[in-house]
Parts: sequence; structure tokens; C-alpha cells
Amino acid sequence: MRALLIVAHGSRRATSNDEVRALTEQLRPQAEAEFAHVACAFLELADPLIPDGLKQCLQAGAEEVVLLPYFLSAGRHVAEDIPNIVAEFTTAHPELKVQIAPYLGTAPQLPSTLLQLAIN
Amino acid sequence: MRALLIVAHGSRRATSNDEVRALTEQLRPQAEAEFAHVACAFLELADPLIPDGLKQCLQAGAEEVVLLPYFLSAGRHVAEDIPNIVAEFTTAHPELKVQIAPYLGTAPQLPSTLLQLAIN
Repeated sequence: MRALLIVAHGSRRATSNDEVRALTEQLRPQAEAEFAHVACAFLELADPLIPDGLKQCLQAGAEEVVLLPYFLSAGRHVAEDIPNIVAEFTTAHPELKVQIAPYLGTAPQLPSTLLQLAIN
Repeated sequence: MRALLIVAHGSRRATSNDEVRALTEQLRPQAEAEFAHVACAFLELADPLIPDGLKQCLQAGAEEVVLLPYFLSAGRHVAEDIPNIVAEFTTAHPELKVQIAPYLGTAPQLPSTLLQLAIN
């Protein structure tokens, strides 16, 4: 079974974290053909943190997790912190395969998405 | 004449700022039917800063600028800093009309964009 874990930075503002949770809810019905479990997790400052999010995937029966960084640029968090956290988790839980998807900032739909926001 | 100004936070990492500039270049051909001038600017840490970006819109002949916050959540930067900078600029340059578009995090295409990244 495959799970999808959207990973955002996390914020001291509860509303920012809730935006990520709401987006995950919106995504779930679209994703369910591919992913039996869809959830979000945070690098810091909000719950669940990434290891807890991965643990919940395991508990939901996932053998594989696609982790998608909800970040706009490939800073240290995307390039180093997330891969390090994932590597530590999969060393402890080798039964789970975790694939890190390209981060949001690389999506080819972004230019047209921005244009739609600008003209509406 | 209308201009489009994509406003990102700005980073100490030059590559992150270059990602925003590259995205702006990708956007330009798609946007040119609506916007004669398409550029990016930064809240801090990178050039041009927002007032300089707005000045360049004026110099390009813009009467109206749509400023699009390239941010995922409505934190202080989106809610306060950007509007304050815009208000200060338009007080000094009342000939320019600046409309702040919804920030990227509100785009209805985001769930499907994330899903595409996850399954590819």
C-alpha cells in the first residue's frame, strides 16, 4: 500500500499550518486512486513532525510513502534536512520505502497557476 | 498599460532567487497578452526589492501593476509587510495603481499540481 505525505515547513502561526492541513484534505479525494493514505507532516514547529507522519503511514499499512516537499525552493530544508530525517527513519524502519518527490517549486504548472491568480 | 510583478521572499541562497527569476521568464510568454511588462521582485535579501520593482514597472510605462505574492501561506509578510510597502510606494507615486492578487497558496490548482508531482 502506498501513502502520500505532504511535508511543509511548519509555522508558529496556527493558521498557516491549518492551510496545509486543509490542502491535504482537498487533495485526498483526488489522490485516493493512487494513495490509500494521504496526510501532511511538518519539518518543525507543528504536529505531526516528519517521523511521526511516517510512523502513521506505517500504522496505516503503508509499504511505500511518497513524501512531497511543500516548498518553493531547494534550500537547505529540501536539499538536506528532509533527506536526513527520512534516512534516519528508514534506517530504523527498513520495511518502509520512502521516495522523496520533486518539491512544489519545480512543478511545470506553476507559471500558468500564477497567471490564473493574476488575471482573476 | 498593465504590469505583473511576482513577489517572493528572497533568500541568502542565490539559487533560490534564481529559481524565481527563471519562473518569471517562463511566465512571460504566457502572460504577454494580459501584461506588457512581467518581472519579479523580493521582500528582502535579493534584488530588486519591491519598491525598485514597482519603479521599473513605472519606467516601463505601467499605469497598473498586479503584484502577486509568491508565498504559500498568509503569514505576516503577505498580510502586513507587502501591503505596507505597496501603500508607501503608491502614496509617493499616486499615478500607479497597484492591485495585490491572491497569494500562491490560495490557488485552486495546488492539490492537482501536488498530485501530479507525486505520481510522476
